[in-house]
Formats: sequence, C-alpha cells, structure tokens
Amino acid sequence: MNVVTSMKDIRVARNLLKSPVGLVPTMGFLHDGHLSLVRNAKKQCSSVIVSIFVNPTQFGPGEDLTTYPRDLNRDLKMLEELKTDLVWTPTPEIMYPPDFQTWISVEALSRPLEGMMRPGHFRGVSTIVAKLFNAVQPNLAYFGQKDAQQVAVVKQMTRDLNFDLEIVVCPTVREPDGLALSSRNINLNPTERKAASVLYRSLSVALFSNNAGERDSQKVRRIIEEEITKEPLARLQYVSCANPDTLQEIEGMIEGNALLSMAVFIGKTRLIDNIVIGD
Amino acid sequence: MNVVTSMKDIRVARNLLKSPVGLVPTMGFLHDGHLSLVRNAKKQCSSVIVSIFVNPTQFGPGEDLTTYPRDLNRDLKMLEELKTDLVWTPTPEIMYPPDFQTWISVEALSRPLEGMMRPGHFRGVSTIVAKLFNAVQPNLAYFGQKDAQQVAVVKQMTRDLNFDLEIVVCPTVREPDGLALSSRNINLNPTERKAASVLYRSLSVALFSNNAGERDSQKVRRIIEEEITKEPLARLQYVSCANPDTLQEIEGMIEGNALLSMAVFIGKTRLIDNIVIGD
Repeated sequence: MNVVTSMKDIRVARNLLKSPVGLVPTMGFLHDGHLSLVRNAKKQCSSVIVSIFVNPTQFGPGEDLTTYPRDLNRDLKMLEELKTDLVWTPTPEIMYPPDFQTWISVEALSRPLEGMMRPGHFRGVSTIVAKLFNAVQPNLAYFGQKDAQQVAVVKQMTRDLNFDLEIVVCPTVREPDGLALSSRNINLNPTERKAASVLYRSLSVALFSNNAGERDSQKVRRIIEEEITKEPLARLQYVSCANPDTLQEIEGMIEGNALLSMAVFIGKTRLIDNIVIGD
Repeated sequence: MNVVTSMKDIRVARNLLKSPVGLVPTMGFLHDGHLSLVRNAKKQCSSVIVSIFVNPTQFGPGEDLTTYPRDLNRDLKMLEELKTDLVWTPTPEIMYPPDFQTWISVEALSRPLEGMMRPGHFRGVSTIVAKLFNAVQPNLAYFGQKDAQQVAVVKQMTRDLNFDLEIVVCPTVREPDGLALSSRNINLNPTERKAASVLYRSLSVALFSNNAGERDSQKVRRIIEEEITKEPLARLQYVSCANPDTLQEIEGMIEGNALLSMAVFIGKTRLIDNIVIGD
C-alpha cells in the first residue's frame, strides 16, 4: 500500500494505477462505515484510493475541528488489511495555501437541514470534494448514505460542473442497536452511547407507521419528535421529512419517497441520521 | 474538423485525440486575437479543441448578452483553415440545465476592476471555465492577456481547485492604431472606431512616462485619465495601476511590475485594455 502526502506524489502515484480508479474520501478515524465504502470500491474498481483529510473548511466556528478524533496509524492498518492501493494524506497547508480563495457553492441543496444548522459547512464540503476529484481524477467516488445531504450536494456538484465520474452511494452501517456508525460516536460516554440508539429507534417507529399507512408529513415528524423526547439525554435539533432529491420540506401528504432526517444532541455530541421511506 | 454539441459527443471526441490536448475557450465571433491563441495551441499541442459558447452567466443585467455578436459559420471556416481538430458548440440548455445551482467564486481577485463594475461576471467566468475544463480535460488552456483579470482569476482557480493543466497566456493582438482586438469592436461606428485608439494611446503615454522614470502610481493613473479626457467620444469608467498578481491598487510608488488597466465607453460600447509596466 502506497501512502503519499504531496500533490505531486498523488498525481504520479494515481497515474500508475489501473483504471477504473475508485476514490473513498474520508476524514480518517475510520470505522466499518468507511470500510464498507472501501470494500464496495474494491469490488467495482481495479484500483482504490482512500484520502484521509480532516477538512477544516467544513467545520464552523465553535464546531469540533480541534477535538475531531484522529488515529492515522490505526487507519493505515485497517486500509492495508483491505488491500487499498493508495492512501493520500494531504496536509491543510497543501489543500489551503495562504492565498487560497476559491469556493464552490451548491446553492439550493446546501440551504436547509445541516446547511441551516452549520452555515458554510457544504461550501467547505463542495470545495474539498472538487479538489479531491481534480487531484485524484477517479472514475468512481464513494459516499455513505449516512450523510444524505452531503450525497445530494456532491451529486449535484458533479453534474453541474461536468465532472466525468460516477458517485456511488453506500448504505449506512449501524451498530446492533441501530446507531449509525460515526467517528463522533467515540465522544459518547457509556450512558450516552446507550441513549444514542434513540435516533434510529425514532426513525424506525416513523417507518413502521408509514408502512401502516401514515402519509401525513407533519404527523411523521411528530412521531419522531415524541420518540426523541422520551430519551432524557437527547435534545432534538431538527427533524425533517423532505423530498429526497430537492431536500425541500414536504408539507401535507407524502407522495412517493421521503427523506426522514434529524440532528440530535446526546450530551454535547451532535449526531445525525436518516432513512428514506415510501415506495 | 469535427464539430460537436452534446456533452456525450465532446467526451467521446476528446478521448480520440492525441495528447497533449490544448483548449481555447471562446465566445465565438472570432478575430485574430482568438486565432493567435489557436495558433499558439497548434504549436504546443498535438490536438486543439476550440469551444464556442456565449456564456449567459457572465453577463450582468443590462449588459449585452442578447446583442453579443455571433457568426458560427464564419467562425467554423476560420477554425477549419487553422486545422483545428475539434470544435465544441454547447447550447445554454446543455451548460445550464433547469436545476443548475453550483457556482465557483474566486473571491479576492474577482472583487476589484471588472468585478466591481460587473458584479457576478467572474463568478460566471470561473464556473463556465471549470465546466469546460472538466468536460474537455485539456492539458493546456489558452487565454488572452487582453482580459488580464480573467487570466488572474482563472489561474488562481486552476491552482486552488487542483486542476491538472497549464494556463497559457498569449499577448494582446492589436490593430495598427493600437486598438486591442475584441468582438465588441464591431459595435463601433467609423467615428467611434477612430476614437477607440485612445485606450492604447493613453496606456502607451503612461508606459513612456514610466520608462522615463515616473514611479508615482497616482501620477501614472492621472496621465491616463488626461489622455482619455482629450477624446470627446470617450468616457473613462475606471483606470487602475495595480499589483499584477493580487490586483490590489498600488498606493504611492510602483515597485516591480504594475498592471495598468482601464474600462472606457466609446459611445455605448464598453472597451477594456491593459499593459504591464515595470521591470
């Protein structure tokens, strides 16, 4: 497994790889969610590149950039075991030199939900993903459904800017109690960890009710709210029942699919989760 | 010479070309300035692609999008004579489908000069150039020094977003009286056409004075203003003496190089020109 840091080295190393090349962009501190992306990429591509970069520009002021968990040696060991071909670990100085000033905004899709709660977040995501795409020039790029809005934003950017690659979306990987894997789960103490299962439980209750015939988007949102309220350690930041393509909130009846998504604080740790319900 | 329109066709046709591939992005109504870009590209590249697209998003409200001159048949004949390999003539619908919403901003460099006078102009330029780069994937891309700020913005975007290509800047091509070639010159009536030589004349007077020892940026700007004032048909919009890399206005003494640039209305036609003075 080749591990490179500089822009020159990633270009040279990438050009030695057999196509199709798959890229799995990560912020490191890898878990089974990331590894499932790598496994999918290994299946579909001749070569797999994983980037590890905690992108400062997608963290807002007061967010957890400095405390974001990191463990490069452990990450590299996990990627080695999966026979990853190439790992790129650029530094902030490489990605954002002093006179850096170019930003990509995917406008409508970046506005609601996470974009509302984390201003500037998706501008940081779009910009770094475009930079990764241009540096690595993958044929396929892998993202997790866990970050549903990120998936929508990256897909839109790829289409709008004519990137010549395919975005592959892989299902959310969950713990046995339903908690979606996230690098931030490490910040939960044992009591909080137990409480955190409320996110997926509330989504599941909403799914059951939808399967049983509930089509009223307001009622579906309320079901989730009520379920979250039952958990004293949980504080709901938002719950959404939205069009999965436009991310616009559904008023009235759900027709076709709906993306149910939420952000919940468990203690000081902010967690997100989502499922798609409908046809 | 192959002429294609759709995104699929340009990708297929491009992949059949021998590398290095040079791209000359144009808005059509070609003149010798464009042709000098194509000739330079022919010299340096194995294959040359010219794009012809009047990009609506770089025109502001009240600007000349609808009256911008067009003559595709004449353009194609000129490009055929230069043995251009491939011409791409996308439509606005291809470049900007209804749900298009992704924009690229090169912030500091887009603010002064043309960016100040034409809000949104460089956002449109950056976005369309990135789209052309991703669709064509050239190894080199050719731009004219005539649009000095556009050159600075495109170079910065290329670096910041890690596009794997080289920006080649070619000198401004001028009429015998010094008028920089521009598709917009067609809008000048014979009297205005004669008056339009004042742009380059004023730049030349400033250059002479700089060569003779004038280093005071304010005096250099004033020399240009005074020269423009002598021409009754001319109305100066701005004159600038700026750092050629940052485009920041030089206060006090000129050290090293300076970009002298201006926008001037001759009748209703807005013209720009520039030279670099100094070492």
